[in-house]
Amino acid sequence: IPSSGERVPPPVVHYHMNNLTTTIDPAGNQEIVLILTPLARFYQGYWDNLLSLSYPHSLIALGFIIPKTREGNAATAALQAAIAITQSGSEEKRFASITILRQDFDPPIVSQDESERHKKENQRARRSAMSRARNSLLFTTIGPSTSWVLWLDSDIIESPSTLIQDLASHDKPILVPNCFQRYKDEKGHMNTRPYDYNSWQDSQQAADLAASMGPDDILLEGYSDMATFRTLMAKVADEAENRDQKAIIPLDGVGGTALLVKADVHRDGAMFPPFAFYHLMETEGFAKMARRLGWGCWGLPNYFVR
Amino acid sequence: IPSSGERVPPPVVHYHMNNLTTTIDPAGNQEIVLILTPLARFYQGYWDNLLSLSYPHSLIALGFIIPKTREGNAATAALQAAIAITQSGSEEKRFASITILRQDFDPPIVSQDESERHKKENQRARRSAMSRARNSLLFTTIGPSTSWVLWLDSDIIESPSTLIQDLASHDKPILVPNCFQRYKDEKGHMNTRPYDYNSWQDSQQAADLAASMGPDDILLEGYSDMATFRTLMAKVADEAENRDQKAIIPLDGVGGTALLVKADVHRDGAMFPPFAFYHLMETEGFAKMARRLGWGCWGLPNYFVR
Ligand SMILES: Nc1nc2c(ncn2[C@@H]2O[C@H](COP(=O)(O)OP(=O)(O)O)[C@@H](O)[C@H]2O)c(=O)[nH]1
Ligand SMILES: Nc1nc2c(ncn2[C@@H]2O[C@H](COP(=O)(O)OP(=O)(O)O)[C@@H](O)[C@H]2O)c(=O)[nH]1
Ligand SMILES: [Mn+2]
Ligand SMILES: [Mn+2]
Repeated sequence: IPSSGERVPPPVVHYHMNNLTTTIDPAGNQEIVLILTPLARFYQGYWDNLLSLSYPHSLIALGFIIPKTREGNAATAALQAAIAITQSGSEEKRFASITILRQDFDPPIVSQDESERHKKENQRARRSAMSRARNSLLFTTIGPSTSWVLWLDSDIIESPSTLIQDLASHDKPILVPNCFQRYKDEKGHMNTRPYDYNSWQDSQQAADLAASMGPDDILLEGYSDMATFRTLMAKVADEAENRDQKAIIPLDGVGGTALLVKADVHRDGAMFPPFAFYHLMETEGFAKMARRLGWGCWGLPNYFVR
Repeated sequence: IPSSGERVPPPVVHYHMNNLTTTIDPAGNQEIVLILTPLARFYQGYWDNLLSLSYPHSLIALGFIIPKTREGNAATAALQAAIAITQSGSEEKRFASITILRQDFDPPIVSQDESERHKKENQRARRSAMSRARNSLLFTTIGPSTSWVLWLDSDIIESPSTLIQDLASHDKPILVPNCFQRYKDEKGHMNTRPYDYNSWQDSQQAADLAASMGPDDILLEGYSDMATFRTLMAKVADEAENRDQKAIIPLDGVGGTALLVKADVHRDGAMFPPFAFYHLMETEGFAKMARRLGWGCWGLPNYFVR
């Protein structure tokens, strides 16, 4: 209460959810896009790529959740340094708002080492923690005027600058581009390889496998002792220069590396199950839950982010 | 952009979720309580009861979701009239913030008539719509500084003024008081009867029933052709004057008539399933989901709201 003793009557905010659109021309319709990133490590390349997005930054809200570890502290400091430069620089580069959450639960494994992260026995705990992080971030930052949510991992450092417009133009409730990873091959040349194994079309074998499992068991993709014979989007990419970047396929599972979601899908209740949901967790469980809510998932095999 | 052409650098909001507490002394610790009400009809008694809550109103945020129907329009107008009086009246009665969402999907049945609402064949569509409404309201209004969420139906017109403090003092992640309904008995006398059949302890019979069902079938409580033999909290109330109002029992299903939830339970991902989740929907499905996330549900059989 200010010293005058007078308190301004608190605002009543009134939202007509029908007036909130998610269209194929989001910028033209002034639609707010919330970009959400669970962040364990900060990469300058990630931030530079964000900055290069041509979608009006005044319509972009950013949200981060960062673990409360030493590595998380370093990531927070680096992120804040990058933010400070951007938000005091050229006006058209500044984002509409930025929220940083420091996570209140411990990440299950300390090492962010790739081989350690991907060990099968670590998957349940890791994906449960990632789900909780994604849910906390989502529930806390999605607001009444959010039209779209773009999930973007912090190791994505290269995308077309028109990423948001391109994805939105397909008018799908849930859409993933194909995520590739840059790596040095045996000869020391830089190359790219498919990376995200969570975007797939289901198979009878996977369904049979699931039917034979205990209620809390989870199906994992990309482990040789659990062959699912699913069709992986990573494997059906056309890498030719003149490929059709607009080719689109329906998906049953999606990855979260880069994932555009109409905010209404989340508002309906679709979240990232931290438990086995139809034997699926996290982003794959999200795809299943969205489907149970009547929303379909789609993928762009020939549209790449790295 | 103001005419000066200068834009104020947008704020970066930084939240340490660990510093957000949910304690047995929420007022002493300045904990923000978000009261959420799906609203089809406005009752002045509901608003008067809200106003009489002794929890500091400066720590209470209110959120409503109202269907886009003629009845919803009337409820909105009545709510706004009540808000206008309160928020311009005595400072200590004013609430910290108020959000009103107008719903963007059609309610499945037009009639709000009680017998129509409770018809078994209407339950799936109705509870699915109610779930979506609750999820939209929750996802849109819960913020980084919300400690508690109190779900309160609009037909609750009488509770102890210390409702929030009393419930919080039990330090449970999810807690429901016992909800009674006032009615005129055959002799024309006003009386009360137990009303909420969604707060229960599970039974072997219900588990067997569930096991025999198709994956999308739902168990419903309070229908004679589907006897569950669950222990209903409504039925174990002690109505004596000198009863132990602090008596507490574990629950497997909860109702949403009045329901206090630690915000972290929702942030973890617990929402109101609009689909059959372990053969349960809405608030009962929420209880199951919370349990899958490691959070327990509790009830106060002898603590009444009406
Ligand atoms: N908040 C949070 N973010 C994490 C954690 N672990 C990884 N991340 C972030 O989550 C995203 C996916 O993680 P990553 O390690 O790239 O997983 P991978 O691509 O499945 O190998 C990245 O943006 C990471 O920075 C964690 O424990 N907490
Ligand atoms: N937003 C919204 N609220 C509703 C709708 N139907 C009922 N409500 C509200 O949801 C709560 C529970 O509804 P009520 O009719 O009392 O259900 P019952 O107690 O299960 O018979 C009350 O606060 C109603 O005002 C609806 O279609 N949309
Ligand atoms: Mn990654
Ligand atoms: Mn009611």
